[in-house]
Parts: sequence; structure tokens; C-alpha cells
Amino acid sequence: MPELRRDPITGRWVIIARERGQRPYDFIVEKDKVKGGFCPLCPGNEKTTPPEVLAYGRPDNNPNGEGWDLRVVPNKYPALIIEGALDKRGEGIYDKMNGIGAHEVIIETPDHYSTIEELELGKLELVFRAYRDRILDLSQDKRFKYIIVFKNFGKSAGASLEHSHSQLIALPVIPNRIQEELDGCLRYYDYKERCAFCDIIHQEQSQMERIVWENDEFITICPFASRAPFEMVVMPKRHQSRFVSMDDAQFQALTELFSETMRRLNAVVPGVAYNYMLHTAPINQDALEHYHWHIEIMPKLTTIAGFEWGTEFYINPSPPEDCAQILCERGTLSREEIQDGQPEHETTIDSQQVKKT
Amino acid sequence: MPELRRDPITGRWVIIARERGQRPYDFIVEKDKVKGGFCPLCPGNEKTTPPEVLAYGRPDNNPNGEGWDLRVVPNKYPALIIEGALDKRGEGIYDKMNGIGAHEVIIETPDHYSTIEELELGKLELVFRAYRDRILDLSQDKRFKYIIVFKNFGKSAGASLEHSHSQLIALPVIPNRIQEELDGCLRYYDYKERCAFCDIIHQEQSQMERIVWENDEFITICPFASRAPFEMVVMPKRHQSRFVSMDDAQFQALTELFSETMRRLNAVVPGVAYNYMLHTAPINQDALEHYHWHIEIMPKLTTIAGFEWGTEFYINPSPPEDCAQILCERGTLSREEIQDGQPEHETTIDSQQVKKT
Repeated sequence: MPELRRDPITGRWVIIARERGQRPYDFIVEKDKVKGGFCPLCPGNEKTTPPEVLAYGRPDNNPNGEGWDLRVVPNKYPALIIEGALDKRGEGIYDKMNGIGAHEVIIETPDHYSTIEELELGKLELVFRAYRDRILDLSQDKRFKYIIVFKNFGKSAGASLEHSHSQLIALPVIPNRIQEELDGCLRYYDYKERCAFCDIIHQEQSQMERIVWENDEFITICPFASRAPFEMVVMPKRHQSRFVSMDDAQFQALTELFSETMRRLNAVVPGVAYNYMLHTAPINQDALEHYHWHIEIMPKLTTIAGFEWGTEFYINPSPPEDCAQILCERGTLSREEIQDGQPEHETTIDSQQVKKT
Repeated sequence: MPELRRDPITGRWVIIARERGQRPYDFIVEKDKVKGGFCPLCPGNEKTTPPEVLAYGRPDNNPNGEGWDLRVVPNKYPALIIEGALDKRGEGIYDKMNGIGAHEVIIETPDHYSTIEELELGKLELVFRAYRDRILDLSQDKRFKYIIVFKNFGKSAGASLEHSHSQLIALPVIPNRIQEELDGCLRYYDYKERCAFCDIIHQEQSQMERIVWENDEFITICPFASRAPFEMVVMPKRHQSRFVSMDDAQFQALTELFSETMRRLNAVVPGVAYNYMLHTAPINQDALEHYHWHIEIMPKLTTIAGFEWGTEFYINPSPPEDCAQILCERGTLSREEIQDGQPEHETTIDSQQVKKT
């Protein structure tokens, strides 16, 4: 029998429909590599991007030159533009404002072919530090209310360049999806006087059914009401509403856990396209008792069709318990050993098994 | 300068980013036909579907035989199942219930290759009458709270069969997306004592910028805060909260307008994949002053990526005003003549122009 599950934060329902005949291994990962050609993100081509706003690993006296470990540049085709005053207007029943915002590209590595799970830990930590530094800098701009960091990997997940990069958009309004989470968390807090995410972490640790990986500071789970196979969420174990509040120990722990998480996803469905999105408290909202930052990871394995568009219900053919177990077992360690925090990098994959249908 | 626009019903923001360089004609419609082979929906194969729950155009004494104009059958691989009692349970912080519901397939025509815009008006009207008849029948089941009717056309829009069909899912809960509309409409009504959709129709008729087609009873517009190029919404001009309340004149008028709307979409972007979704008031909620049923039409021309997932913001490169004008001008009539209600079927299309990039 299929099961309806409700996300405790947003109230969104999903249908876990194991009976529809697709097991987690049945997904075909279509080859959807982004086409090659000239790469504006590669070393040597720095002059083809807008001037950088941040660079790590290179002497400061050579801006927009080579020798960097990571660069952040404005998007050449921005969805929003940085110059101008906010101008909010009505037009009868409709509301609009001009498209003020920032749209930046975080070039995660100089190596064109390196994927995020292949980065050395020291280099991956720079990616998270760049997210923090750019959020802190843009937060000073009084026009902005929210900053979303996200990554599109693979053409079907919306990437238009192959070179490993993430993006950041600063917005003059709080987006609906975030407001929905804030409202849901506040309702829970009003009722329980506890953070809903903290309660989720405790329940997951006691149920031991949906944990993919954890260390002292962070945990990765397949959420109870997963919208798609191998959906994951990464959460700090300490209650913390803002990504930028992380200390050094947390940066290091997040890096280790995230690297392992992405390596496991790629071991199970090699080359899968995915999106990840950082959800943190809005700008200028100090430490919130009721909100908890997190990273959502959405592999692109199912299609959004009329039912999903029309209802915001999702049909997920693979229970998150099965997905978490597969993600755990891809290594040689047992789930118990994995939960002791030993990283396991020697995962192998039987590609015959993955591409069954 | 890009523009931020807010949907007056849901509060969802979109970015209309004309500057990103894609004009409405620049979209490549990828060939994503659903693969052929044995078709369980074709005449002669009636025994390969679950037994029909409705058929039009055939003598009643030959159920599941040939000779029908339209059939409705349970989905062979249902997302929810019809037998059983609802069993709502908690599991710590999580809520779940068993997957009770109905999942049916409306086989719109016996002709395997006919698309919805190619159906004769008399046949298309049967499709809408089948939606009504099935909604009325399933509404008697006290376990159900909402019935969503939708159509997936083209593989990238989630269709798995080529033969023209739509689907219906009866749900034991009201979906988030619908509740969001109901809440938004109620807030508006509390403030204005008017229906938000009625106000939208009046404003669109006075602005004359986003109307695609209209007749005495119905209107098609490209919504002010369109999420994607050529998004459209079809609304009855009379205030009406339930699809099933339509009278005969409305069925006929809806059929004419919908046929013309889909023909125009297909003239502008031939073969485009799309979804449409019927939004009507929940079951057992009698005529609501604040809600207005409608059909959302979403062509599949852009990709849902990390930004959209993470925020529910959408980046739309084509202003709805431009899209509406293109949809109007694809015929030989002027916008004014079109608004006089003369249908125009002799649209021609320069395919070179459509597939520019």
C-alpha cells in the first residue's frame, strides 16, 4: 500500500509509492553532460568574466589573473542587477518592483573537470567559506532581504557550464519557500517551545532508519517526506539558524560530511544531475530560536509533471529508508560502523545494477 | 532592467528577465515524443486496461468493448489505491496515512495520433464532461477531500504514453498548492469583499495586454506573474468556484476557447510538451464567494533548477505581454478582431523562426 507522508516543516504531502515498480536502482541516469567548448571559468580566461568580487589562494596584487584556488564573479547574464534603487509599485491588483539584486558565480576550483566530491577537503572548505564571506558582504546592503546559495550540476538540473561552480542570488524579498519554512518552524516552536529541526535530528538518531552519514557536528538524512529518490538534507547538530554563524570546527566537519555525502550519492547513481540549496535565516534576523539552517540536496531522477505542478504533492517511488540504506551500504562499512564516523572512500559500483531498466 | 512580479493569489514572486537574451521565439522544442509500441489505450486493447469506470458513445451493453468516443479507466500503476480505510497516524514528529485515493486515466479519443487541439469540438466537449462526471461520482466518497485533474503531454512533461489522455487523482487531503490559493483568495476577499480572480479578469480586460483569447463565457490570459514563457490560465467570466457547476452554455464556450488556446500554443511552439491542471474548490465546499476555478497551462520550455527549488521564485525570460501578443498574432486577425470572438483556425507558422537558436 502506498503511504502519504507530511513534511513537518512545510506541511507538504508526498506519496511514497513503492508499488509503482521502480526501485532505487532502476533509475537511468541519462547522459546529460553540459556541452564543452570555450570555458570562461577556466584559469587564463579570467578577463572574460566580469571582474571578481572575491578570490582565494592568489597574491592580492594580481586581481583577475591566474593562480587562484577559488574565484567569485558576478554572473555575466544576471537574473537581477545590482545597480539602482528599489522601486515598489502597484498596478491595480498586481505588485511589482524593479529587479534589484546580486547574482554571483562561485568558481569552486581552477580544474575544469573536477566535481565537488572529487575536491580535496581543504579546497572544498574554501567553497563553504566563500559562501559565508559573500553572504556577510552582501548582507550589508540594506536593499536585500534574503540570499540563496545553490548549485546546479548536469544539464537536466539546469547547469549551462560544465566547470564546477555554484551560484548565489541576493533578493529584495523573502522567497515563498523560505517564508513557508519560517512559518512552519514558528508554529511548531509556539506549540512545543523547541526547534522542529532539532526534534527531527533527535528522532532520526533514535530511529536509525534514514541517516546517511553523521559526524560530531553534522548529520545527513534522507528526509521522512522525501520528494524524490535519494533526496537528502544536511543539518548542523547544534541549534543554529544562520549559516554564517559556523565556527572553524563546524566548517571542517561540514566539509568532511558533505564530501562523503556527495561521494556516496555519486557512487550509487554515477554522474547523476542534482541541485543543492542552502536554506538559512533571512538577513538581519539574528539568531532565531525556531529556525535551523540546512542544505537540501535534490538529485534529478524524476519528472515534475501536471500532478506535482498542480498540487505540490510529489510521487516518490523510493522510500527514503531504502535510499538511506543503499547510500550507507555502498561503502564496505556497516551502518553502525558508518555512524561511528569512519569515512569510507573505497566505494565501488556495479554499473549494470544501476542502469537496470 | 529585470522586473520582480508578485502573484496576487499565492504571493509567489517571479523575475521577468528579458535581458537574459532569450526571446519567446528562441526556445528549442526538443523532440521528446513518447516511444511507440503497443498502446493499451487504443481501441481493440480495452481488455488490457483495468475495467472502465465510464465510457461515452458506445451502447451500454458492450462494456470494455470497441466503439467508444471516450473511456475512463483506473490507472494500471496507481499512485494511490481505492480500497481500504483511511488510517492516520503519527510517528513522533512525523504524520502519515495510508495511500487511499483514486487514480484514473481519461482516454480522450480512440485515435492514437490525435492531439487535444486537433479534436473536433464535439469530441473535446466530451473530455470536459468526463472530468465533471468523474469528479461528481468520486465526490460521493467521504474519504476524499480533493480531486485534481491534469494532463501531461510529451515525455519531458511526464507523459509515459503517446495516446492522448488526461488523468485524475482523488486525494484524502487538500494539497498545499490548493490551500495556498484558497488562503490567498480568502485574505483578498476579507479585505476587498470581492473575488481576486474576478478582479484579475476585469483588470486584464481593461489593460488589454495579456489576453490570448476570449468569448462570452471564458477568457485565456498569460498571467501577470507567469513562471514560464507562454504560461496561460483559463477562467470562467462568471464567478464560479466549482468546475462541476458549469451549465451547457459554459461547456460549449469552454470547449471553443480551450481548443483555440491550445491550437495557438501549438502554432507558436509546435509540438511543445506541456502540463495543464484544473484547480477547483475542494469537495463538499459549496459555492465559495472567494474562490474561482481555473485551468493552468504550463508549457515545458524552461528548466527547474536550484534557484527555483530553493526559493519557489521563477526566472522567466519572456514577459507575458510579449507572449500574449505572439499568441494573438499567430492568426491573421488583429488583437481587436480576435477579441470580438471570431475563431481563427488558419494559423501558419514559420518553423525557421521558432527554432532560432
